[in-house]
Amino acid sequence: MPAPRAIVLLSGGLDSAVALAVARREGFVTTALSFDYGQRHRHELTSAARVAKSLGAADHRTVHVGLDSIGGSALTDAAIAVPQDRDEHARSHGIPITYVPARNLIFLSIAAGMAEVAGAGDIFIGVNAVDYSGYPDCREPFIRAFEQAAALGTKVGVEVSGVRVRTPLVHLTKIEIIRLGTELGVDFALTSSCYQPDAYGSACGHCDSCQIRRRGFAGAGVIDYTIYADAARGGRG
Amino acid sequence: MPAPRAIVLLSGGLDSAVALAVARREGFVTTALSFDYGQRHRHELTSAARVAKSLGAADHRTVHVGLDSIGGSALTDAAIAVPQDRDEHARSHGIPITYVPARNLIFLSIAAGMAEVAGAGDIFIGVNAVDYSGYPDCREPFIRAFEQAAALGTKVGVEVSGVRVRTPLVHLTKIEIIRLGTELGVDFALTSSCYQPDAYGSACGHCDSCQIRRRGFAGAGVIDYTIYADAARGGRG
Repeated sequence: MPAPRAIVLLSGGLDSAVALAVARREGFVTTALSFDYGQRHRHELTSAARVAKSLGAADHRTVHVGLDSIGGSALTDAAIAVPQDRDEHARSHGIPITYVPARNLIFLSIAAGMAEVAGAGDIFIGVNAVDYSGYPDCREPFIRAFEQAAALGTKVGVEVSGVRVRTPLVHLTKIEIIRLGTELGVDFALTSSCYQPDAYGSACGHCDSCQIRRRGFAGAGVIDYTIYADAARGGRG
Repeated sequence: MPAPRAIVLLSGGLDSAVALAVARREGFVTTALSFDYGQRHRHELTSAARVAKSLGAADHRTVHVGLDSIGGSALTDAAIAVPQDRDEHARSHGIPITYVPARNLIFLSIAAGMAEVAGAGDIFIGVNAVDYSGYPDCREPFIRAFEQAAALGTKVGVEVSGVRVRTPLVHLTKIEIIRLGTELGVDFALTSSCYQPDAYGSACGHCDSCQIRRRGFAGAGVIDYTIYADAARGGRG
């Protein structure tokens, strides 16, 4: 019996790297799937390629989707600033301007198409509803509703059975995710979380994503090899 | 009170042109949305632009989505031939090779993101489950499941209410769609249905889509101004 196949959404950040490591541990032959969607932190695609290789993905594809022609988010519209140094209270209330409209809906839809062509029964996505930025498309009710829609709207869903969307990190804290990744041999130095890295790929240290990452590593007692631009150049954050 | 806004998926074919005309008749300010997705019948995008203009869409956007990097369909993979001259029995059984995996799921997802940014409460899609090619993503249960997923996965869905997906043609025959479009002043000569038009944009006359179109016009008693490559050059099919 051939090994089962899975599509793994891989952004280049730390959560999706751990999701890929979980899929590999479960024995899946994996296609890592990244998106070039006009994100200002396009640097993450370089990280995604390195993570895919280091964790033994059988294949890594990057699909272009012109979400910058939709706009409406600080991540895809250069005219909207990325919020800096928001405190925990601000981060945990409301949906921030870094939310990209319908992003996971769009990414999962493309993954469903790819799963159908590749004969993959599982899609892994590293969404997390604990230490997250308040995005609605990171919560489980959305994921389950998506599975329904995908089952009804694809050939494989109609003729065989729908694709499963696997969310191994959804109930973990950032600290638990970092510990799990460490256990599974994820090289976090290859990952990139910052929403607005500088031209050298150094993280800003002040966006929500950097703040959540920093606090996670500190809490997990794991060294964060990220180069933060606010630390001395070449130093470790 | 400002006029309500709607996003209308506009392929350049005849069904979506009628869907746009219906949205306009209902008083919507419309953004027509087309996709450059690696389709072999990319000619349809020229038709879409003409249709959007002739029916008074306030805006027409074309979003690039690299579905050709997924493949698996005769419409996005040059190595897979478009079936010719299939009879009605063949056309009404099973899902054909021109099915593009998860296409409407992907297109509606992007439309949901655009609706959110534009403040549109309605998305119009010209799917039709009567005289159609057997695609699973043209049926109503899929559309309703999609609405659920979109409501749970978008900011507007969480904070206000989900987007409505309007399918004004879903229960009409092709003949009824052509009659409705004629009534609403759709200039069908601007539309393009063929899956593999020649370099001049002439329709092949033999793919499923051409066959369904031809039969529809004949049945409706409406002149089809499409130029078919199998008729004398310059003649009318």
